[in-house]
Amino acid sequence: MKRFNALIEGMKLMGMHNIAQVTWKDVKLGEGFWGKWQQTNARSTVNAVYDRFFETGRINAMRLDWKEGMPNKPHIFWDSDVAKWMEGAAYILYYHEDDELRQKLEQIIDLIEAGQNEAGYFNSYFLTCEPDNIFQDRTAHELYTAGHLMEASIAHYYSTGSKRFLNVMTRFADYIEQAFKLNKTANYSAPGHQEIELALVRLWQATGEKRYLELSKHFVDVRGTDPHDRIFSVRNGTWPADPPLNSQLLYNDTYAQDDAPARELPAAAGHAVRAMYYYSSMADLARVYNDEELYQACLRLWDDATLRKMYVTGGVSGERFGEAIGASYILPNQDSYAETCASIGMAFFAQRLFSIHPDARYADIIERQMYNGALAGLSLDGSAFFYDNALKSAPAHNDFLKGVHDTRNLFPNYRRERVFECSCCPPNILRFIAAIGEYIYATEKDTLYISQYVQSNADIQLASGALHVAQTTNYPWTETVSIQVDAARMPDAVIALRMPGWCVNPSVSVNGAAVYDQHTLASGIELKHGYLYIPMSMIAGDTVELKFPMPVVELEANPLVAEAAGKVALMRGPVVYCLEAADNDFNLFDMIVLRDPQYRQDLRDVNGVPVVMLQGQAAVRSRGNWEQTLYRMGSSKYEKVAFTAVPYFAWANREAGDMSVWLQKESNLFGE
Amino acid sequence: MKRFNALIEGMKLMGMHNIAQVTWKDVKLGEGFWGKWQQTNARSTVNAVYDRFFETGRINAMRLDWKEGMPNKPHIFWDSDVAKWMEGAAYILYYHEDDELRQKLEQIIDLIEAGQNEAGYFNSYFLTCEPDNIFQDRTAHELYTAGHLMEASIAHYYSTGSKRFLNVMTRFADYIEQAFKLNKTANYSAPGHQEIELALVRLWQATGEKRYLELSKHFVDVRGTDPHDRIFSVRNGTWPADPPLNSQLLYNDTYAQDDAPARELPAAAGHAVRAMYYYSSMADLARVYNDEELYQACLRLWDDATLRKMYVTGGVSGERFGEAIGASYILPNQDSYAETCASIGMAFFAQRLFSIHPDARYADIIERQMYNGALAGLSLDGSAFFYDNALKSAPAHNDFLKGVHDTRNLFPNYRRERVFECSCCPPNILRFIAAIGEYIYATEKDTLYISQYVQSNADIQLASGALHVAQTTNYPWTETVSIQVDAARMPDAVIALRMPGWCVNPSVSVNGAAVYDQHTLASGIELKHGYLYIPMSMIAGDTVELKFPMPVVELEANPLVAEAAGKVALMRGPVVYCLEAADNDFNLFDMIVLRDPQYRQDLRDVNGVPVVMLQGQAAVRSRGNWEQTLYRMGSSKYEKVAFTAVPYFAWANREAGDMSVWLQKESNLFGE
Repeated sequence: MKRFNALIEGMKLMGMHNIAQVTWKDVKLGEGFWGKWQQTNARSTVNAVYDRFFETGRINAMRLDWKEGMPNKPHIFWDSDVAKWMEGAAYILYYHEDDELRQKLEQIIDLIEAGQNEAGYFNSYFLTCEPDNIFQDRTAHELYTAGHLMEASIAHYYSTGSKRFLNVMTRFADYIEQAFKLNKTANYSAPGHQEIELALVRLWQATGEKRYLELSKHFVDVRGTDPHDRIFSVRNGTWPADPPLNSQLLYNDTYAQDDAPARELPAAAGHAVRAMYYYSSMADLARVYNDEELYQACLRLWDDATLRKMYVTGGVSGERFGEAIGASYILPNQDSYAETCASIGMAFFAQRLFSIHPDARYADIIERQMYNGALAGLSLDGSAFFYDNALKSAPAHNDFLKGVHDTRNLFPNYRRERVFECSCCPPNILRFIAAIGEYIYATEKDTLYISQYVQSNADIQLASGALHVAQTTNYPWTETVSIQVDAARMPDAVIALRMPGWCVNPSVSVNGAAVYDQHTLASGIELKHGYLYIPMSMIAGDTVELKFPMPVVELEANPLVAEAAGKVALMRGPVVYCLEAADNDFNLFDMIVLRDPQYRQDLRDVNGVPVVMLQGQAAVRSRGNWEQTLYRMGSSKYEKVAFTAVPYFAWANREAGDMSVWLQKESNLFGE
Repeated sequence: MKRFNALIEGMKLMGMHNIAQVTWKDVKLGEGFWGKWQQTNARSTVNAVYDRFFETGRINAMRLDWKEGMPNKPHIFWDSDVAKWMEGAAYILYYHEDDELRQKLEQIIDLIEAGQNEAGYFNSYFLTCEPDNIFQDRTAHELYTAGHLMEASIAHYYSTGSKRFLNVMTRFADYIEQAFKLNKTANYSAPGHQEIELALVRLWQATGEKRYLELSKHFVDVRGTDPHDRIFSVRNGTWPADPPLNSQLLYNDTYAQDDAPARELPAAAGHAVRAMYYYSSMADLARVYNDEELYQACLRLWDDATLRKMYVTGGVSGERFGEAIGASYILPNQDSYAETCASIGMAFFAQRLFSIHPDARYADIIERQMYNGALAGLSLDGSAFFYDNALKSAPAHNDFLKGVHDTRNLFPNYRRERVFECSCCPPNILRFIAAIGEYIYATEKDTLYISQYVQSNADIQLASGALHVAQTTNYPWTETVSIQVDAARMPDAVIALRMPGWCVNPSVSVNGAAVYDQHTLASGIELKHGYLYIPMSMIAGDTVELKFPMPVVELEANPLVAEAAGKVALMRGPVVYCLEAADNDFNLFDMIVLRDPQYRQDLRDVNGVPVVMLQGQAAVRSRGNWEQTLYRMGSSKYEKVAFTAVPYFAWANREAGDMSVWLQKESNLFGE
């Protein structure tokens, strides 16, 4: 049993907490919702991603023997794809014996070890294709790639206990420290694509070497302060006279969060994945350095991202060109962006903010990503992926555009792909699910936080000793969670249970007696920032029963979200729903949910995976009279239809067809 | 008094009519709605467009003395901009004495006359910049430009009686005949951008030289049959190995209607302006050659364009990238395309189909363009323009995107521009309004058709003699039209009055006695295809009074138009309305029109122009409780608001702000 940030010492903790997540190693998931996903991950996804990466040359690129004229020229960011796969594989191998998988992983480490140059550098593209241009081009993703490789090496170390790969990566980190901080031989100050900042914090946690923490801080501090870095941005439409090598369009300073130093960033903006990784590292550093200014910046960015720029699915956000966080409240449904990686990145950010301040809103967002924004990126059989995620999809429209614009991609796909040219999302969802255990439990001194309700059991170290905790639940499909904890052993400890933000009337009982119900607290129980604090001494019989009623609810969006005006999104528990043509033989986009839809729900099977589906009542216009009419006056009569909604994460697993998250709702303007 | 197609002789007229428009020369508009627009045209627009064209170098380019290193390098299509201006100026000069304007026009003709090469060719770009590449690049717009110059020369001839410019252009036409038909020295068969086809029909009408008609037929017949022409298209994403000079992306064969020969075209598709000009020429040729197959193709394209691919404003259509007619029923509001020129082109097409078959649906569409799709392209003061026309506009969203993508233009502008790089629309709306008289009256034998209700008087030639007709009306603001016609002089003639498609209960009376009311016809009166045929012998007192009740109506779109689901567009008479922030201090996009909006209407002033505005009742959500909430369950209460709607053509003439044509409507699913 180990906490990765047990090495944090001597920190001043004034207003900030220092909550430690219980790691993926210490949590076993069993056969619940996420346990099954981890099995799919281990049996299908990890192999599917590897095979595609092998076929596309990503694995062999690391042999560094590519020559001009050969197929599959290495790409600047390929190593990052492989690194995320390695990280996921390392997590999986801790629980699942798989010799073939282990061999694949170790062979890639062999390649990296062999390929690392004398200085400590590794990047299969630059070592093969442009060895003289190392760290010359800020847009070339070298530090991003290095960060992911570091994370992979840390996972490998925790999973296997071997420091072989970790040592390769600390050498690389040492070289980066020289190039960017000590000797400043690199041609820019801050990475074009953030990631290494959070990886270096983890490298410090894994090794205890504080230089890595300080290097992370260096990168965060320098960002937005070096005018030279901005040369690589396109300002006011002017492309730099001499564009950098392999340059890609950085639309403006905001694109890569270069518009201001971290502590002054005014709003969540720019490339969404860069933003989320960056903000995550800012939160890490705010906590470790007790940096109030940086923390306030994090809170400002968090509020902006989650209160104005997030889809109901958790998707971040609406600006396709630039893969960016859009403007406030501009959340288009059909031409959404909502990259799978950005949802995962927002979970990273949320987890780190929770470590500073235990507030259920962070776990609420993690849950939203787990069951919606992130999970939607993966097919039910674990082998196919979405990069960007639509909230509304009309395949006929996509196909029409494809016929007209061969190179444009105005809407997200309506079919999942097995690999992408820029294939960051598939291995990202792989590693996210493989380490999903990390989001469930956390500790601070003698308080045990339970943030996610997942069938699992865990060995947990509190200040005054170790304890075992188990959850029995079929969450998110069923409303009840039973928590077994050896409370009697640690009467001075406290268990803090998250009351989900989506739940109107949660109830908690101990040994059959309610301690929280109808928003009434039993004596000795506290509710703070969405967590119910129960002294272990009150937990007779070692069992806490939770009930989270899960009626179907209709969510409205803020009136400023024009794309959701007059519409509702269906949610049951933490799961957001959508309608698909596969279940509904009428025009989804014309459909209006009745004022009283008489919702029903049942467990059904989609491609072998059980999911709760919803049924409700709605109305659509008959198309019969409209064949020769495009516009007409007067109001059409509607026909009743029964609709079926499927969890958003499960869409696009059957025949392709229309899909919509937001549904028109029968008006009820002034109440009944 | 003259009919331009009086030269048509020996035509077989089997199923097809041969209706002749009464030309702009024979119609005087006075002080009504269009008369005032013509005054704005003559006082403002014609000078504003000239000045911008002068400033940008378009006029001086015709001096052919541009040299590398000088500013304002000529562009391949600049002459077409100037030509449309010349055409408009020629119309204007017939009614408005303006020496300065006449001088400008004649000076440009001097330049063209002087610049035309020995072979007869003129194009200021090619003669200046690429004299060796004449007719080598199918995408270089040379025939498009030539067509517009021909139309300008015809207008000049009709306006002044001088054949000076006309003769220049017949020499050009002769050279084109040699290059494309006789000697085939040109490097392609059919123009990349159609226009010359309809211009050549007009050139035949103006000169009586049948070779021009045959050349038009040649271009229409050859289109879609020469595989070599397709080299210039990008098929399946493959750019040709050796792209042509000045090549522009022709996305696929459909883009320029190259996918099939004219008679086999399956659907209205591709670049909308090319399509409309092309279809117009097809209708011309179908009529003149009594070509049933071509006519059927026209009807198929017409139905497809107007029943599935037209905005409620008449805009054609929804596909921005490629400036194209979109897929059926895909009519996005904020990222509409709906080019002003395409609306004008659809009026051309409609007018030509009317000449073959007198059906009010053609005049209905012309009217829709006159008051909406086309007119929206011009500011009320006549000096600023829209190229593409939004149906929904949110300036904050445009501005955000502008900050992110300096070169992309994902939405139409929300402010009118004074000139565009591709500035076809400003002179097109100029010439359209200058010749608007041409859409009012038409004749066949002894039948006088009145298709548009416009304050005007006209001298008209019927088979058995000339007559004078006058309309007194403040249409489209008032419901009544009084028509004076010297009926007694021609008792055997028939007057055919269009009953507008938008009007539920038109009534017509003669000398105070109803001849048509409540859909009941007096004896001797016929209603066919939307025209009311009244024998002149029945018109006692020489006056016909028409009444077209103009309540505010709410239009619904076909249920397949997803962007209009649950919404209505307001129309009063032929005028489509929108809501603008300038009149409405609440969130337009959240607003829901009440079931009974208690509409009122009144005449108000917008920038000095009187327009009928509408008032109604609606509801919006209060924003007060939403500051810290992006999504929430439950249904919000609404507050009543009074809204004001302004004619769509008059939008964007005041301070910039949100605008929407389609408005959410309170549900009334199963009737009351």
